[in-house]
Amino acid sequence: MTCEKQILSEAVSNVSRAVSTKSTLSALEGILLKASGGSLTLTGYDLDMGISTSIEAYVKEEGEIVLSARLFFDMIKKMPSDKITITTSEKYLTTIKGDVTEYSILGIPANEFPELPVLNDTNTVAINQDILKSMIGQTLFAIATTDSKPVHTGSLFDIENNQITVVSVDGYRLAMRKEAAQTSQNLSFIVPGKTLAEVSKLLEEKDTPVEIKVSRKHIIFNIDGYMVVSRLLEGEFLDYKTAIPQNSTTTVNVTTRECIDCIERASLIISDRLKSPLKVSFENNAIKFSCTTAIGKAYDEIDCKVSGNPVEMGFNHKYLSDALRASECDEVRMEINGPLSPVKILPPSGDSFLFLVLPVRLKAE
Amino acid sequence: MTCEKQILSEAVSNVSRAVSTKSTLSALEGILLKASGGSLTLTGYDLDMGISTSIEAYVKEEGEIVLSARLFFDMIKKMPSDKITITTSEKYLTTIKGDVTEYSILGIPANEFPELPVLNDTNTVAINQDILKSMIGQTLFAIATTDSKPVHTGSLFDIENNQITVVSVDGYRLAMRKEAAQTSQNLSFIVPGKTLAEVSKLLEEKDTPVEIKVSRKHIIFNIDGYMVVSRLLEGEFLDYKTAIPQNSTTTVNVTTRECIDCIERASLIISDRLKSPLKVSFENNAIKFSCTTAIGKAYDEIDCKVSGNPVEMGFNHKYLSDALRASECDEVRMEINGPLSPVKILPPSGDSFLFLVLPVRLKAE
Repeated sequence: MTCEKQILSEAVSNVSRAVSTKSTLSALEGILLKASGGSLTLTGYDLDMGISTSIEAYVKEEGEIVLSARLFFDMIKKMPSDKITITTSEKYLTTIKGDVTEYSILGIPANEFPELPVLNDTNTVAINQDILKSMIGQTLFAIATTDSKPVHTGSLFDIENNQITVVSVDGYRLAMRKEAAQTSQNLSFIVPGKTLAEVSKLLEEKDTPVEIKVSRKHIIFNIDGYMVVSRLLEGEFLDYKTAIPQNSTTTVNVTTRECIDCIERASLIISDRLKSPLKVSFENNAIKFSCTTAIGKAYDEIDCKVSGNPVEMGFNHKYLSDALRASECDEVRMEINGPLSPVKILPPSGDSFLFLVLPVRLKAE
Repeated sequence: MTCEKQILSEAVSNVSRAVSTKSTLSALEGILLKASGGSLTLTGYDLDMGISTSIEAYVKEEGEIVLSARLFFDMIKKMPSDKITITTSEKYLTTIKGDVTEYSILGIPANEFPELPVLNDTNTVAINQDILKSMIGQTLFAIATTDSKPVHTGSLFDIENNQITVVSVDGYRLAMRKEAAQTSQNLSFIVPGKTLAEVSKLLEEKDTPVEIKVSRKHIIFNIDGYMVVSRLLEGEFLDYKTAIPQNSTTTVNVTTRECIDCIERASLIISDRLKSPLKVSFENNAIKFSCTTAIGKAYDEIDCKVSGNPVEMGFNHKYLSDALRASECDEVRMEINGPLSPVKILPPSGDSFLFLVLPVRLKAE
């Protein structure tokens, strides 16, 4: 079996995203190579997520083998030649050859590689690559990283009334992103954060559609010749609609980058060892940030437009700056409903995204 | 005390190289700031090496204080203003202010900061920045990293007969670099590798001279306004002149980059867990690299000019590629004196550098 080095290298790199880096089953650390017809199919699968693609190849004899993903990628990447030839013997001894460079390694029988899940009764949705990438990018940061509520380690995709809503929540903050959908069906499913992070890396900033197939337990993303299959998360996701405060007593418009810089400067004296809330005071023409830890005191402020009641509240500085960063806007609107209610972060107009950050109670001074 | 942000930031960054990252004495994790006359002097000192520099400042009142290097640098770096004002109270409370951004932190009294060593009876040598940088760069890789022979964790500077020779050795390899010197004195001293690594970062690719002052126990490098002071290593350095084989039975000329690539490809199946020597066979018109570990076999070869006896020998692949990388030449000359004698790596002509790599005995197959 012979194929182009560049194409093989890219395919191995992308398929490797679904390969376990450490597993007791060595086949899960490998890539399944299957040569048949005029193509080579590469598959990685860590039992949670699988990625598969086919590339053009000159196949002299059909066959399949599993090779260590890391080792195989290093070999391909460094090959000095344009073409690479792979040969496997009956005893799984595999030769990888490019010009004079030659490796012989023992592969793993293909029958030790787990089968990818087969999806029945699927619903299909299509969404453009750039839009899906933006939707994942603006919500992924708020996914729970602890297992205390496993269903929140994924994002909810809620499709209804010609609209797709993606929601992530981790108990301290919430991120929601809406887009018009090209589908009239109603559908709701929860995709693991790890899958979304890898899907996002395969997505490009272009408007070609991604085909998404959803069954009861699994999901498939078809992206530019790559098939990503993943299990879905099951359980009761937060009822996000009731979690969002309807009223606000203070509205603030602020330049995003400047506000992030201000937060970072004022939070410099906070560390994992010296935790402290960031005190944020929204006043007439400014937001004032201050903070006190065992190291000392920090103070900063930023000019901005505040309308409504002045209010002083405490925040975890990281949650606030994460949300501002995910806004992907030069300017954001904050809506505040008193010092103990979560703050809403929105685009200057509309609500294509909505982030909630829970305040932290400030100690009386 | 007020000074320019950019200048202060660069000075803090460079002086921080001599600050302990973790010390039981918190003053050693700090930078000593001393404002007097029209300047601010910054000093970092970890008891092995000290770096000091002065920058222009508007000093309203003279004074000195020690501030945490990491924290101070983060504060300065992120300041939004061009000017930074630092004020210290009698109780060591220090205010760092730029525009509206303001930090108050508790400093450490300057008398807790250790005194830099004072050098008596010094000899002075001058050497251009670019040359010193190249001499350090071509020898630093061969410095011993273990403490089994502490004197070899530094490089020997041997100045005699109008020539400076720098030598590093770690028991498996040796690196030697020669340059004509502008001094007629004879002088020999051993500088710790850590000091040389930091000195090298301060050196630029230009031909302005570095003034080097050497006493019995210490050395000072004066580089563009920075003073680096370091203790010297004491002990019996390897007699490098007798360690270099005088004869050779095989001479090889090879393209450096191609040879490094070949070694890397053939060594891909070697890991910390699966160590194995790289078998290198110098034949008439090629070097053949091969290697066998539990993973499998690798083979590669490179065309080159081999004169003299063909020879097959084993190497630690990393030592061989380190030396080739340090050559900074498109092509190198290897001189071999049989399979058990160290190989010499030299420039195509002359001997401005000379690297020795000890072979590894190959098991009979």
